[in-house]
Order: sequence, then structure tokens, then C-alpha cells
Amino acid sequence: MQQALEGVKVLDFSQLLQGPYATQMMGDLGADVIKVERNGTGDIYRGMTFFNKWIAGDESPCFMAWNRNKRSLAIDIKSEEGKAIIYKLAKETDVVVENFRPGVMKRLGYSYDDLKKINPKIIYCSASGWGADGPYLSRPGQDLLVQAVSGAIMTSGKASYGPVALGTALCDQVNGLNSVYAILSALFYRERTGKGQEIKTNLLSSAIAFQMQDFFAIQNLGTKFERPESGIGHPGNGAPFGTYKTKDGYLTIAMSPWPKLVEALGDNTLMQYNDPKVLYNQRDEIHSIIETITVTKTTDEWLEIMLGLDLWVARVYDQSEVEHNPQVIHNNTFVEVEHPKAGKVKVTNIPFTMSETPGKISRPSPMLGQHNQEILEALGYTSEAIKKLTDDNIISSEVINKSDNSC
Amino acid sequence: MQQALEGVKVLDFSQLLQGPYATQMMGDLGADVIKVERNGTGDIYRGMTFFNKWIAGDESPCFMAWNRNKRSLAIDIKSEEGKAIIYKLAKETDVVVENFRPGVMKRLGYSYDDLKKINPKIIYCSASGWGADGPYLSRPGQDLLVQAVSGAIMTSGKASYGPVALGTALCDQVNGLNSVYAILSALFYRERTGKGQEIKTNLLSSAIAFQMQDFFAIQNLGTKFERPESGIGHPGNGAPFGTYKTKDGYLTIAMSPWPKLVEALGDNTLMQYNDPKVLYNQRDEIHSIIETITVTKTTDEWLEIMLGLDLWVARVYDQSEVEHNPQVIHNNTFVEVEHPKAGKVKVTNIPFTMSETPGKISRPSPMLGQHNQEILEALGYTSEAIKKLTDDNIISSEVINKSDNSC
Repeated sequence: MQQALEGVKVLDFSQLLQGPYATQMMGDLGADVIKVERNGTGDIYRGMTFFNKWIAGDESPCFMAWNRNKRSLAIDIKSEEGKAIIYKLAKETDVVVENFRPGVMKRLGYSYDDLKKINPKIIYCSASGWGADGPYLSRPGQDLLVQAVSGAIMTSGKASYGPVALGTALCDQVNGLNSVYAILSALFYRERTGKGQEIKTNLLSSAIAFQMQDFFAIQNLGTKFERPESGIGHPGNGAPFGTYKTKDGYLTIAMSPWPKLVEALGDNTLMQYNDPKVLYNQRDEIHSIIETITVTKTTDEWLEIMLGLDLWVARVYDQSEVEHNPQVIHNNTFVEVEHPKAGKVKVTNIPFTMSETPGKISRPSPMLGQHNQEILEALGYTSEAIKKLTDDNIISSEVINKSDNSC
Repeated sequence: MQQALEGVKVLDFSQLLQGPYATQMMGDLGADVIKVERNGTGDIYRGMTFFNKWIAGDESPCFMAWNRNKRSLAIDIKSEEGKAIIYKLAKETDVVVENFRPGVMKRLGYSYDDLKKINPKIIYCSASGWGADGPYLSRPGQDLLVQAVSGAIMTSGKASYGPVALGTALCDQVNGLNSVYAILSALFYRERTGKGQEIKTNLLSSAIAFQMQDFFAIQNLGTKFERPESGIGHPGNGAPFGTYKTKDGYLTIAMSPWPKLVEALGDNTLMQYNDPKVLYNQRDEIHSIIETITVTKTTDEWLEIMLGLDLWVARVYDQSEVEHNPQVIHNNTFVEVEHPKAGKVKVTNIPFTMSETPGKISRPSPMLGQHNQEILEALGYTSEAIKKLTDDNIISSEVINKSDNSC
């Protein structure tokens, strides 16, 4: 069976999270992704990890998580010989992705304008932190900082918590998704018209667009969202929408018909709140009352009662418990791949099915420069020429520095 | 200038958030999206809002946020005449999107197998809560519940907070983005091969895939993430990564060279912590110490000092302040569109630029059934036939019920 993006060639200059996530998504659907890495050290993420712990000695879980289905070329892109190689690759590439600070690719001779001369049909996506220009141009653009400026950091939990950084790299990842959305649209357009183009994405715009419902409400209702001091799940929602302690854990209750919920809770006096306005205005009080009841039974007991009444409820899982959930097992969400150094590693599968062109994990994350030889051979370089490039340190496969910095 | 998805026809049976977000993204790049709505009431979101407040009397900000660039057809899809219309539309449609519970479209006669008979090249995307089959098949699948089961709800803030629901509809929206990613790949593939296909996405798999770095670390380092009891931004990170109180607000500090940060803070005794292992192991203590210093100056004062040293810092914005940020203004992030009933409304712009085929907001969210006539005329229905369909209540444009439920 074919893959949807088979035959699409991606030249990937990106590192850390957002760019690599985007190119991995294309690789998952069959694109041939060549990861251009800094000679000797590679993607910065190779040298960062969590808890100062590594996989198989010195492999980074952060790097490994975002770089499957890619081939690695470790190359000195500042050298003349390196540039000749990149230009040859660019000539036959469909898509370029980069997430350096704005201006870097231009200084190196790899801007859209440079590569378009070599390959007029190229699609070139630059992903920055704040935008390609403007007052924040010289500022460092990074996920947590963009969470802060986009307001996302003030939307979760209770007002008294202050800012709550989201556990996921929300801005990086949403921009990775938006980059793929833009690139695939451009590929489709090119297929119809033969025209390439330049795409510019940024974390800030993506983070704001991700909150567009909130912004729409704020700007057009002339209001503000204040996080409630209870377990209500969204500042704009009334009770019961939220999380509740049980005897042995937590239960979430989403929008559910109040009379049915009252039936499940077994306290008919709660029918006094049976009005959407009351459920909104007195949500904190109502949340507390519900919780005095939910703590009297286990989560399983509540699930049996409430699902029986078709209420919208679920158990709260800790991340480490998720792989044991029966639906997660049924969905085949986690699969194993063989890594050249680490052996079997568990990875998250492609999150959807396609009947004709299913996604596939064909390769684990590459070792640095693992594919130097095959990539250069395909460009027509002889063994001798490749050896000379290696001896001259234009290409390499050695990792020099590991830091103890967190991802 | 053309748009990337110009000429692509989308028949959109989706409602609430995830599906409408996906089809809006396609509309933003030029696809012609026909929103098939329930005769008389329309998308459930039309009847829900925040704070019991409405725009222009009874328009929902939630509906309006996710349905620009679409045309509305209000139709009784269970009637024979309605089915004839849908089948005619399906014949010339490229993409179908639906997010009913699994099985509903089949009962109605609009499954992939049904529509493929009419149009073999059709691309058909079904988005469900938990998956198209499996043990959770009969369970209600909704964003907050999926946050709970996917573990996402346990990743933000401090461990003592318990579950922290994310302020954005994370699972819905990430699945909307993944649906677009899959659909555009399928469109590209069809352009090359002529073959359509069926896509199945679900909230649960998307929510887990969004956390793939965490899962990779948990499953392959054999460890757990415990949220720290300080303002550190991610359970896997050391100090200073996190948020800090200032004299007048909050500052975020991302990964920054410790000696430079110490210089900025002006207390050289802090150099004793200059070791990544120490910054991780004693992160809560170090966070507290830093905060005793950051509270002595305003955020602006710190920004001047710290940005001057190229430290990775930013101010924390409340959502309601975001539109005043100079970079947000520069990026043209918020724009106005004219709505037939509400007048000028502010919306979030397309979050990236494309040099050849820029995204465009051509239409505000539609009124229910606003485009009945033009859609049916284009199918060849006469004015008389359209009048009869209206009289027989096969198509309509009246909204019957508004609830006071929150979005």
C-alpha cells in the first residue's frame, strides 16, 4: 500500500520541537525527510533530556520523540563544500522547513530567495517565535514565553494559582500542526498549478489562533474570563462541568442534564439548582456540594452509576496510567520500533487511520549523520569523494557535547 | 491572487467544535465549505454561549468563532427530498467531514460506503471522541473527558492542585488540526492518483499524540512526571524555567544561562547553584529564592535588564490584554469582518502567511440556512421547487431553540 506523501522530499533544517514535529508528521505519511544537522553536535535536542536521565547511555527522549521517519545528514553548512551539497539537495526538494531566528538562513545563503533560484517550485516554510519581523524580532521566541504573551498561561486552573504553564509545549506543537496545514495546502496548490511559495508561521499567532473562541468572546461580548475558584473546567462554563474528588481518585463531569445528574447523586434537594443561569452563577457553591457526595464512592462506582444514565463522565488518568486504558490498547496507540542503539523503544502511533494510505513508522529516530553516505551517494558522490568530505570534517557522525539541560 | 484550496468543495456535517474548526481551516485557504445544518435549529453551538450573554441579541460567540468562510444549508437530512439534495451535493464534493457518534451517518444513509457509490473519489473524514470502535464506543466523547483519560489534565500546575483542566479545548482543537493534516494529505494523494479514501480521527489519539514527548520519556526512561510545588513550568525542567511574581505582575523565564541570570538578579551568591543537576534537584528552593528578588521590581524593569542580557524572558499577559501587545498588532492578528446581524465583529486572523496563496476571511459565520437558495439553485433547482421545499419544511432558516447552556 502506498503512503499519501510518498515521493515528497523534505529538506529539514529545523531543530528542537516545532519544526521537527512538523517534518515528522510529513514523514509519518511517507515523505522522505532529510534532517540537516550541525556537523559534530546535531540537533540541540540530542544534548538535552529530562531528569538527567538518558536512553541507552546518551540518547535523548526529547530528540527521539520528534525525529522518527527521518534520515540524518550531519554537515557543515557554512563550508563551501557543504553549501554545494545543500544546493544539490535543494534542487530536487519539494519542501524546506527551518526554524532558525529570522535572518539566519539568509546570512547562510539558504533563504527562500536563494533556493528559489535553484528550484523555482520549492515550498519553503520558516517558523519563528514571534513573527518574521516586527518589534519582537530580536527577542528570543520560545514556547513558555509565547504561552505567557498569548495569554494561554492565564487560562487554566483557578485565578488564585496565578499563571499556570501548560504541561505540553502548546505553542510549539500547535505551530508544528499549523505549519503542516500550510505546507500541505501549498503542495496541493503546486500540484494543480506548478507554483511553489514561501510560508511563514510563528508560535505567537498560532497560540492566539488556538484560543480564538476565547478571544472572540472577549472581544465581541466585551467581557473577560475569570478562572473560578473551584474545579469548574473552563471560566465560561457553569456547574457541573469540571473535576471532582472521589473516594480513590478523580472524576470529570462534562455538560450533563442536571436532573439525571441529581438522580445519579441521589440527593433530590439539588433540583433547586435546575436552571442554567443558577448553575452558572452559583457554580462554585454547587461544585462544592457535588464534591461532598462524589467523595463517598470510588470512581468505578460512580462510572457505573453515571454511565448507566448516559451522563458525560470519565475517570482522570495520570499520564503513566494511560497506556493501560482499554480504549487506548484497542486503538493501538503505542507501538514499538527497533532503534539501532536503544533496541526496542515505545512510540506514539500516528493518531488517525487512512483507508488507502495508512501512516507508517518506517524508521526510528536517526543517529547523527547515519545517512550521510546514502544521501551523498544518491547525489552522485563517489566513495572517495565522501571519504574526503569526512576527512575534511565537512560531514561527520560524531556527537561532541551532551549537556545536562532539560528539554 | 488565488487561494491554495480554491476549487475544493467540502460538505460539512459537523457541529460543536472539532469538526467546524477543521472545515473553517479549509475555508480560510479558499475551500467552498457547505455547512449542512439541522433544519430549524442548526449547529448545537448556535444555542450555547458564555455567561448567558449573546452577540446582537441571540448570536453565539462560540458558533461565530468556528464558522466563518462557510455557507449554511439548513435541511432535513432524514427526509427523502433532503436525501436527494445531499446525494446531489455529494456527487460533486471533494471532502466530507462529520463528527456524529460512530454509526449515525450509516443509519442516515450518508456513510463513506454510501457516498463512495455516488462519488468514488470522495475523501471522507469521521472524527469521533474515542475511536470508531472499541470498548468506549457507546461512551460520550467530549473534550474535558478526553483531557481526563489522556492524562493531559494532570500535566499543568502543581501536584497539589489535582487535575487542572486546560482552558482551551485542547483535545477538540488538536483533533481538528490532525483532521486537516490527514484530509490535505489525502487530497494531495488523490491529485496524484485519482483515489479517494476514508479517514478516521479521534480526540483520544490526538490528545495522546500531542503529549508524545512525555509518553516517550515515561515509557522509555521508566519514569513519571511529578508536577513540582513551585512555579517551574514543566515537571521535567529545572530552574529557572517557569513563572515569577514581580512588583506588578508576572514574568516568565525560559531556559537561560545561569551566570547571566545571576548577573541580572544582582546576587552573586546564587552562583553556588551553577550546575544543571543542582538547578534540577533544588528547583523549588531556587525558584523561591529567585522570586524573593523578582518581586522587588516591576515586570518592565526586569524586561529591560534581562532582555539587555539576551535572557529568555517575557511578560505574562491576561487574554484581555493580548490585543494590545505591539507584536500582536504588528502581526495583524485580529481583524474585523462584517456580520449581517451583528455588524462589525473582531476575529482572529489566519495564523500564517503564504506568499502565493494567502488565507482570506471572505465570509463571516453564516445565518442558519442563509445560503439555501443559492446552493439549491446551483444544483439546478428552480425557484418554484425551492419554494416547495421550504413550504414542506425540508429546508428552512428559522432558529427554534436557544438554551442557556455554556459552550
